[in-house]
Amino acid sequence: MRKIITLALLAAGTTAFAQNPAEGISAENCIPGAVYPCVDAQHRATFIMNAPTATEVAADICDKVYPMTKGADGVWKVTTDPLVVGPHYYRLVVDGVRVNDPNVYTVYGSGSSFSMLEVPESKEEAAYYTFNPAVEHGQVRECQYWSESQQKMRRCYVYTPAGYEKGKKKYPYFILQHGMAENETGWHTQGKMANIMDNAIAAGKAVPMVVVMDNGDCDYSFGAKRGESMDQFGASFEQVVVEELIPYVEKTFRVYTDRKHRGIAGLSWGGKQSFDIGLTHTDLFANVGAFSGAIFGGTDINTMYKGSLKDADKFNKDMDVLFLSNGTEEGLGGMMLDPVFTKAGIEFTRYVSQGTAHEWLTWRRSLNEFIQLIFK
Amino acid sequence: MRKIITLALLAAGTTAFAQNPAEGISAENCIPGAVYPCVDAQHRATFIMNAPTATEVAADICDKVYPMTKGADGVWKVTTDPLVVGPHYYRLVVDGVRVNDPNVYTVYGSGSSFSMLEVPESKEEAAYYTFNPAVEHGQVRECQYWSESQQKMRRCYVYTPAGYEKGKKKYPYFILQHGMAENETGWHTQGKMANIMDNAIAAGKAVPMVVVMDNGDCDYSFGAKRGESMDQFGASFEQVVVEELIPYVEKTFRVYTDRKHRGIAGLSWGGKQSFDIGLTHTDLFANVGAFSGAIFGGTDINTMYKGSLKDADKFNKDMDVLFLSNGTEEGLGGMMLDPVFTKAGIEFTRYVSQGTAHEWLTWRRSLNEFIQLIFK
Repeated sequence: MRKIITLALLAAGTTAFAQNPAEGISAENCIPGAVYPCVDAQHRATFIMNAPTATEVAADICDKVYPMTKGADGVWKVTTDPLVVGPHYYRLVVDGVRVNDPNVYTVYGSGSSFSMLEVPESKEEAAYYTFNPAVEHGQVRECQYWSESQQKMRRCYVYTPAGYEKGKKKYPYFILQHGMAENETGWHTQGKMANIMDNAIAAGKAVPMVVVMDNGDCDYSFGAKRGESMDQFGASFEQVVVEELIPYVEKTFRVYTDRKHRGIAGLSWGGKQSFDIGLTHTDLFANVGAFSGAIFGGTDINTMYKGSLKDADKFNKDMDVLFLSNGTEEGLGGMMLDPVFTKAGIEFTRYVSQGTAHEWLTWRRSLNEFIQLIFK
Repeated sequence: MRKIITLALLAAGTTAFAQNPAEGISAENCIPGAVYPCVDAQHRATFIMNAPTATEVAADICDKVYPMTKGADGVWKVTTDPLVVGPHYYRLVVDGVRVNDPNVYTVYGSGSSFSMLEVPESKEEAAYYTFNPAVEHGQVRECQYWSESQQKMRRCYVYTPAGYEKGKKKYPYFILQHGMAENETGWHTQGKMANIMDNAIAAGKAVPMVVVMDNGDCDYSFGAKRGESMDQFGASFEQVVVEELIPYVEKTFRVYTDRKHRGIAGLSWGGKQSFDIGLTHTDLFANVGAFSGAIFGGTDINTMYKGSLKDADKFNKDMDVLFLSNGTEEGLGGMMLDPVFTKAGIEFTRYVSQGTAHEWLTWRRSLNEFIQLIFK
């Protein structure tokens, strides 16, 4: 179709307006020209929706629906209660129908295209995941490769650190997985992975490394479509990793190809997958992490993960980093393995994120911890 | 906030369903699990919207609003008239409010986050921009760099061809710009640039090259905000290109750094910018292209582009490729330069896309033509 915008708009739109609206600071993911949503110092968000013909409009964020008030110009507006910090998926509700906010870039999460609002932490708290012009920056690459097992093109994202481009040296790498109903874009968009890597590497806290983010085949609709059990759900990713992704990455990038320089970690369902794959293929991985891992499987150290942990001494000697994390405000999975591992003499690192739930703030922090441990 | 999806959904969603719905083939950009929108053999699209509480729902595509019919399940549906082929921005209309379709990934275009539907051309017509598993694939990289002139981080996308990664040789490159109210993602998402490059390079029709896509500062809201005239609109991009982008690219990537191996091209307003920048900096660029260029400036060969074309012999000797294209169904700009150039003895390549308007099909084709000419 013809482009909707014509040059006439240029002449029409000459009203100057401020960078931020009266109610706060514009969200970082506003599209060009949009100043709402915004967030104020008390962490209250203000949303608008241009909907002159609607009867009822509301904003649905953080488990609460805020009715919006219609202005004379047909633009609805509401300011929320103070919200907890971090990125929040939200929807606007037009006559009962949940829709995305046209004022922000849309992300993929919770099994759908979603609007997201980042309620900023303090500058100090956010420093490790904030873009810093003063440090060198890596790149995030979209790569496509053919999957023989799935007979389709698959897409992965690969972070290469600053200096990779023109250097000659090899790098260690790890696979970093999203959770259920997310995809390979999640760590980059919601997770701010590139900023976390750039900052930790620049500070010398993490060694320069490559990070590979793929699709874990765990969108619940896929599982539902296939009529999968929980055990089967996302299990197809194992074959992809072992037979296709690792060969693709090691053929394509300047990375080491031995287990000591290879890792796998993930959040929530991706944490479960990382343990399922990493701990049953200890010949491939010496670094394994689960961030809020959705891990409910057995507690028998002799049989779990195909028995790979039954000889604690051997396992401890082989595994460089075994990492588990959770937020204090979440209940889901992961923690139940601690006593099992401890009793069996399995060495592991436990990180607990204070005050955060089953959410991206927990996972940003977990990533920041994990990368400071591995490949050292 | 806590992730919205819980594991309980896994157990709930066990209904198996087909890959495609009865009305056609699911759109290529459906989110996981979504089978609508779809398109049938007659190019009719079928849209759905789950909106049980709405009074009136419609689909707005290709300049026509199609009222949808509510099913007993609260899901509204409509099948359109046959649509012209190509990618179309569209919106669903809920009680008069235009919203994005939650069933597809959202793209950025026309100054907003938009739903887009690709109405497929024939396989033969689409072959050059279709992902082909049988050829080697390049990468598309998201890069961030500091802009001194704008005191902010800027983002560009860089395509590197297959083989770049592990090779040592240098590549030619060109800057490829979007149009008004689009951004640096446009060529990759709507333009299918990577597929076009991969296919042309694999077929030996284009030499392996790097492509740089940046933000042209020409979202109309920016211009409006600054109270810019048409001449000023997006003019800030020149300084970015000359002082920041070129140095960044040449410092970061393994590319040649001479004018013969450097180019700039763009679509619509990006075509205007490419001529403005490329033809006034002939010391930097030997390859310049405008696809449906929004070019209205003077017709005096002695003064246009700071007089760089007034000596036709010198210009022709210096410039390797000067490229202009348009679709037959568009009226906007570009064509008026042909007689001016011809009269002055300026050598150029004119490409005309048959049956296409001011739209991405014209620009995909234009890109495919341009890359077969340059760096040879």
